[in-house]
Amino acid sequence: MSKKLTTRAEDYSKWYNELVVKADLAENSGVRGCMVIKPYGYAIWEKMQAELDRMFKETGHENAYFPLFIPKSYFSKEASHVDGFAKECAVVTHYRLKNDENGKVVVDETAKLEEELIVRPTSETIIWDTYRKWIESYRDLPILVNQWANVVRWEMRTRLFLRTAEFLWQEGHTAHATKAEAIAESKQMQGVYADFAENFMAMPVIKGAKSESERFAGALDTYTIEALMQDGKALQAGTSHFLGQNFAKAFDVKFTSKEGKLEYVWATSWGVSTRLMGALVMTHSDDKGLVLPPNLAPIQVVIVPIHRNDEQLDAITEKVNELAKSLRKKGISVKYDNRTTYKPGWKFAEYELKGVPLRIAMGPRDLENGTLEIARRDILEKQTISIDETVVYVEKILEEIQDNLYNRALEYRNSHITEVNSFDEFKEVLETKGGFISAHWDGTIETEDKIKEITKATIRCIPNDAKEEDGKCVFSGMKSNRRVLFAKAY
Amino acid sequence: MSKKLTTRAEDYSKWYNELVVKADLAENSGVRGCMVIKPYGYAIWEKMQAELDRMFKETGHENAYFPLFIPKSYFSKEASHVDGFAKECAVVTHYRLKNDENGKVVVDETAKLEEELIVRPTSETIIWDTYRKWIESYRDLPILVNQWANVVRWEMRTRLFLRTAEFLWQEGHTAHATKAEAIAESKQMQGVYADFAENFMAMPVIKGAKSESERFAGALDTYTIEALMQDGKALQAGTSHFLGQNFAKAFDVKFTSKEGKLEYVWATSWGVSTRLMGALVMTHSDDKGLVLPPNLAPIQVVIVPIHRNDEQLDAITEKVNELAKSLRKKGISVKYDNRTTYKPGWKFAEYELKGVPLRIAMGPRDLENGTLEIARRDILEKQTISIDETVVYVEKILEEIQDNLYNRALEYRNSHITEVNSFDEFKEVLETKGGFISAHWDGTIETEDKIKEITKATIRCIPNDAKEEDGKCVFSGMKSNRRVLFAKAY
Repeated sequence: MSKKLTTRAEDYSKWYNELVVKADLAENSGVRGCMVIKPYGYAIWEKMQAELDRMFKETGHENAYFPLFIPKSYFSKEASHVDGFAKECAVVTHYRLKNDENGKVVVDETAKLEEELIVRPTSETIIWDTYRKWIESYRDLPILVNQWANVVRWEMRTRLFLRTAEFLWQEGHTAHATKAEAIAESKQMQGVYADFAENFMAMPVIKGAKSESERFAGALDTYTIEALMQDGKALQAGTSHFLGQNFAKAFDVKFTSKEGKLEYVWATSWGVSTRLMGALVMTHSDDKGLVLPPNLAPIQVVIVPIHRNDEQLDAITEKVNELAKSLRKKGISVKYDNRTTYKPGWKFAEYELKGVPLRIAMGPRDLENGTLEIARRDILEKQTISIDETVVYVEKILEEIQDNLYNRALEYRNSHITEVNSFDEFKEVLETKGGFISAHWDGTIETEDKIKEITKATIRCIPNDAKEEDGKCVFSGMKSNRRVLFAKAY
Repeated sequence: MSKKLTTRAEDYSKWYNELVVKADLAENSGVRGCMVIKPYGYAIWEKMQAELDRMFKETGHENAYFPLFIPKSYFSKEASHVDGFAKECAVVTHYRLKNDENGKVVVDETAKLEEELIVRPTSETIIWDTYRKWIESYRDLPILVNQWANVVRWEMRTRLFLRTAEFLWQEGHTAHATKAEAIAESKQMQGVYADFAENFMAMPVIKGAKSESERFAGALDTYTIEALMQDGKALQAGTSHFLGQNFAKAFDVKFTSKEGKLEYVWATSWGVSTRLMGALVMTHSDDKGLVLPPNLAPIQVVIVPIHRNDEQLDAITEKVNELAKSLRKKGISVKYDNRTTYKPGWKFAEYELKGVPLRIAMGPRDLENGTLEIARRDILEKQTISIDETVVYVEKILEEIQDNLYNRALEYRNSHITEVNSFDEFKEVLETKGGFISAHWDGTIETEDKIKEITKATIRCIPNDAKEEDGKCVFSGMKSNRRVLFAKAY
């Protein structure tokens, strides 16, 4: 398979699809809409999981596991929820196969379920059905639970990581005694997500609230983090929902308060998914391949020997083993690729494609001089340094790369937030430049829908830090008191 | 909910079910056969996962993720496999729900899948369908991949952890250039499982091979680790399969060898599941509740303050914080339960039920004397020691508990392996004492089936260390050259 990619300028969408496959992140499977996450892609996801899991635990959450299947009737209990989720879903109707008279494997029609089971698209219903058994008094609250799981949403048009029928995610589901606590929790988790996106993914995000029509089905408020991809389209990277007492009422979950009163429980839920993998790819990568932030790179430094014979290889290997050991002591992940089945040039292209932040090459001349060649993936620059300085240098440069990726993405993002004051300007900016459009909106669903219909742009969020500002809705001309962010989005 | 359990002597099965629920490990859900793994139970599973994952990676394996759904036709490709697995399974037939004329949520019959999808009972088929795309030459081999996932097998009689419709597991799937390598891999993983069972679960196991009829559907050889529960029944705790070229042939996976020849790839698969949680409970626990080996206990030391007023509590807390910090520095997990909503006696019973290895109590008298009371869960003994000695003491005793649990289980297991030389003896030992029965077997499936029919005992394994020994089959009287182990099993 050629390592050459379609360029972003040629076809951004094609570039993305090729990159995900060629960099060994994921590929389509024989099952419609379901992907295979390959070891290299999964290793990045594992690093994401580890950091998020640590952050969840540091904020007092525990993990648990709830059933994959949800009885159909559960969905009917929360009206807006069923409309939002349970419609496009995988439905289990039978529990047995058999061989027919010709020996063909067929569904056994006598083994039909009394009630169909839905493969979870999200777990609010089954979890609140369980919480009813766990909660009696204020002493049982709060419940701060997270689940790492697979979920299925029957998407018609799928794209690796960005939109797949099955995807991996975490879903936090918390139960609280008061409204204030639940709101604080959902905002806290928005903060955790933003922290993760910025400090690990090196991906700047805007924190904000969703407009009513973009909220999670069943939520009173949805807090989001929105990122901007290199093609000027926004990507919703994580959401945290204040669910009010909707699910407590649907599943009859009450608690006895300190004052002895019976009250409904307050809820939140929040999640991020393997979609973040798509966001990571599209935020930093270039026409040569992946560019990974060191904080999430499975391999931070790859070392390639350059040799003509076994003797040279042995001498290089000895030196490399020493160096690798020192680097690993500092917590740096190092791969030494001494395969003789591939040439150095092939390996260089391979690790460029795979986004390894630093590549070290060492040849016989380097051994003589006590040097090595080190190349940065982010700016595609290389230099020769002394072997003795390498550990200190690598530590410093990995941090620099992490910062550089963040700053580069931030600069791009900031230069792609445009304030507009008329609908013509709105359409023009959207078509020519893309990015976020900061505009006044009259607060009605009608206007939001019409703008979407005409431009395909949606309200990404009402930013947390939006200032009060008198103005007129770009579409209707009605009064507005703050700007919101529109964009075309993934 | 009362913390008192049915005793093991009264009803072992009831004791187990009560314990799993009362100790907050798991509970049944609203979905037939599917359990909810509660945070405390999941925390133990996470510790198991972390150790196993480390061991897999140390032996060169990487994680990946494959689709939840498998097209029905995939199962038909490996004949014995479909019989063994795909028959009792969850079948997805539709992909949409709708509201009917009365507003009721029903399956949309117009949204029927062309080919039904099976919720994976195990992933050999979908993985080998994928490996075909990954493997071209010997340079692509070996593939050493593991997956952490949920699987579904439609069991009619389910029991928490031991047999559930959905369960969590890991499944390793490896591809090799030679038969010898594949066999070595499957044996290596049997060794990894035994190591984990013995050193982390403190559960002695017998390593052996399965007889033909007990093999995995599609395997040429199944290597197993077999444990013995306190009621004298065996439990298969992990299996590793040498699959030969069966799946490579079924999915047409060939590679070009170094010599340029096109050959079928050799395969293994191996797995352990949340069933290990059941094994852990049944190996060590007693009539007061769980007993957890320190190496897998989410909380290794719990500290309970004993106080009459806030002033005393503050003084104790200050001392405890200092102690907890020192313990944590040594990598010991500590919980300080200073809730004032529960009394010390309630907390003692609670942590006994939850199997926390060490419990420390500290009261005002202790503060004066610089002492504390420390109680071991495994032998239910307590003593008073000086606070200053505590860290050293705890480190030592945790190791002692780990060893004690293993040795206690080993002693029980060893005293429950009985050699018998006649079928009458076989039946008598099975009825009166249980455990493993070491007996000569003629090697035929017919004999195995008849013994199972009459006694419900199955061949658990042909132990790896079985000596050559001339004898006669206890059932048929035919010649045999080594003993195998029979038992009733979970």
